[in-house]
Amino acid sequence: MTTDALIAPEHTAVEVPEDRLRRAKEASRAVARLTSDEKKAALHAIADALIAHRAEIIAANAEDLRRGEEQQIGASLLDRLRLDEARIDALAAAVRQVAALPDPVGELVRGQRMYNGVLLEQRRVPFGVVGVIYEARPNVTVDIAALALQSGNAVVLRGGSAARSSNTVLVDVMRRALEAQGVVGDAVQTVDDFGRDGARALMRGRGLVDVLVPRGSAGLIETVVTESIVPVIETGAGNVHVVLDASAPEDWARDIVVNAKVQRPSVCNAAETVLVVREAADRLIPSVVAALQAEGVTVHGDEAVAALASGIVPATEEDWETEYLSLDIAMRVVDTLDDAIAHIRRYSTGHTESIVTADVRNAERFLDEVDSAAVFANASTRFTDGGEFGFGAEVGISTQKLHARGPMGLPELTSTKWVGRGSGQVRG
Amino acid sequence: MTTDALIAPEHTAVEVPEDRLRRAKEASRAVARLTSDEKKAALHAIADALIAHRAEIIAANAEDLRRGEEQQIGASLLDRLRLDEARIDALAAAVRQVAALPDPVGELVRGQRMYNGVLLEQRRVPFGVVGVIYEARPNVTVDIAALALQSGNAVVLRGGSAARSSNTVLVDVMRRALEAQGVVGDAVQTVDDFGRDGARALMRGRGLVDVLVPRGSAGLIETVVTESIVPVIETGAGNVHVVLDASAPEDWARDIVVNAKVQRPSVCNAAETVLVVREAADRLIPSVVAALQAEGVTVHGDEAVAALASGIVPATEEDWETEYLSLDIAMRVVDTLDDAIAHIRRYSTGHTESIVTADVRNAERFLDEVDSAAVFANASTRFTDGGEFGFGAEVGISTQKLHARGPMGLPELTSTKWVGRGSGQVRG
Repeated sequence: MTTDALIAPEHTAVEVPEDRLRRAKEASRAVARLTSDEKKAALHAIADALIAHRAEIIAANAEDLRRGEEQQIGASLLDRLRLDEARIDALAAAVRQVAALPDPVGELVRGQRMYNGVLLEQRRVPFGVVGVIYEARPNVTVDIAALALQSGNAVVLRGGSAARSSNTVLVDVMRRALEAQGVVGDAVQTVDDFGRDGARALMRGRGLVDVLVPRGSAGLIETVVTESIVPVIETGAGNVHVVLDASAPEDWARDIVVNAKVQRPSVCNAAETVLVVREAADRLIPSVVAALQAEGVTVHGDEAVAALASGIVPATEEDWETEYLSLDIAMRVVDTLDDAIAHIRRYSTGHTESIVTADVRNAERFLDEVDSAAVFANASTRFTDGGEFGFGAEVGISTQKLHARGPMGLPELTSTKWVGRGSGQVRG
Repeated sequence: MTTDALIAPEHTAVEVPEDRLRRAKEASRAVARLTSDEKKAALHAIADALIAHRAEIIAANAEDLRRGEEQQIGASLLDRLRLDEARIDALAAAVRQVAALPDPVGELVRGQRMYNGVLLEQRRVPFGVVGVIYEARPNVTVDIAALALQSGNAVVLRGGSAARSSNTVLVDVMRRALEAQGVVGDAVQTVDDFGRDGARALMRGRGLVDVLVPRGSAGLIETVVTESIVPVIETGAGNVHVVLDASAPEDWARDIVVNAKVQRPSVCNAAETVLVVREAADRLIPSVVAALQAEGVTVHGDEAVAALASGIVPATEEDWETEYLSLDIAMRVVDTLDDAIAHIRRYSTGHTESIVTADVRNAERFLDEVDSAAVFANASTRFTDGGEFGFGAEVGISTQKLHARGPMGLPELTSTKWVGRGSGQVRG
């Protein structure tokens, strides 16, 4: 890190990552006081600047891609890393979408006149400094900066080394756009150039970083949760289940299972396991499996499933634990709804589960007893999504129970504050 | 720990603290489904049992007191440790008060019909297992168990070794009272007998413990925040400030400063530092200091304060940082409101601050720019309190920004869950 800091032209020889966190904290006070109109103007300036600097961004991105090819990081990572004109335009459009969302800051959460006349209110305020640790995708750099700014926060970014050149330019473009609008550029910072020390500073930055959001692989999230002494909002994996109850209507069962698996297999709210209550197995499994196979899905089933359909790959314990994120699904016959709930309790990551049933008692039991961020009766698991819920922006989907659970919108990037206005009241 | 486990008669040789966490998790599912009436009955049964077992509790407490005296833990700690008939009656009354509070579980936070007809609602649900790590006060054992149960949670307690005998009996009495009501006793557990391993298990209990609340000294809280990989709700210290603005009415200034310091000096919302804007120093300092001294308060002042009043102890840098929790207060003259806000930014713990002013612009600036859990204009800092805010119960006062900020009521011991009811909807 010392070497890095010495050669990087924008640093003095003695700069440490904590200096940036302190500058972000200072900047956060200015950002917190921006009006909605000022924030909107700043975000549109960022969008304009992204378009204006497309060539520069694409050139930096080409360096990352070249390095990625040399290091043979694989086609799918390379694709996530790639920025072209169309993708930069999409990034700018996403920033404008965030600018159009309602400003959560200042919202009155609740309020009352106290017994003694003090006017008391709980108002939504920014966190202050939001830290984000993420992996190769340079679009996250811009997305999360826009979300943080619109919710009145400064942001300190720590992206993956694979996207370092792209991120450096993106952060620089955003900072210059802010400064041109009279907003302090230190509201958007990166600690990428400090390498591991940058991530460590974010995780140890109590008093400087108000909340830390890890975005990426299960390993990254695990590391941040384990090492951070700053409060963390965890966005987790989804080992998502669909239960076909004894009374499940065949068309709903088929449509929901196929949609939950196939509509976008690579995302966290896609279904990974289907549990069929034994009473419905003969009636439902042949047609559900056929519908899945017609969409190119490989079904990993237990013996009871294999007895009712062809082309079943034998399922092992590992299949119940796996978040495939691909055109694969596990399927198991269970004796009762209780067994289905017990299976979910054991294997679910607490993201989303759905039951297909015509029985109101079983529907309500499932909705009540399954302890996941989102539970559905007779609807696809793919609905657990900030956009679908009408939040506009995609901060992530929390699988923890503290602060935010399920899809997070802009309000989840804020805290609250109690404000009391009196006229000399004292406590008796 | 192994030795402990072997000699403790209630354990099998192989029991580890994680076994209790697992049993608490299992029990939490039953507690989550109790109706409000069932929880109320369970809490009244606990209150009755505390009264019925007073002698047993007092005998166990006597052991703790004897050990405490031998170890010379000091008069104030001994007093906190002591349980007598009146204090047990007060404990039982507190449990009945919690039983009378509105049940937060099931509250509809928000809801809508989605664009496709799915009925979506966000409901308040229990966390599951609440862990608490605290120090010598045995009353916390009962208070927190009652709060956890009323909010539908199981609780795992780790009290200080000084109160171990008392806590063992209190937990046992509560568990038996629950069982007699048909509520699983494992809903209330202690890991005290595992010593440090019990605390460690709570802090490492991801997936078994849903939230961990440290209650006690700054050192204890720091340890839990640093070591826990379970989400923590931090209840922090209060280095609380009162600012006397240039236009502060003299009577409000005097009344509020005296009340904020004197009404109960040992608590976190008591004032510790008064900042006087220079323009008001001549006018306010003599009478405010005289009023404080008349109540037995020692004023630690800077030179400007000492020039205007007698009996001032010279203040040092350390005074600005100190949470006295005693009849001492620091006082400093600052040039402007900006300087007062800068002082607060540097020294405050973010708990509560108040300004006394007749100037609406300065009041609003202060309320807006001071980044604390509660900010007041023209009212005593002592109002930052769950009881004063009308919450009924005192879970603690959070000085963190995630999940809960300021006084925490029962709803702050819950999470939420999204529930969707459809009729076969899939995502397009």
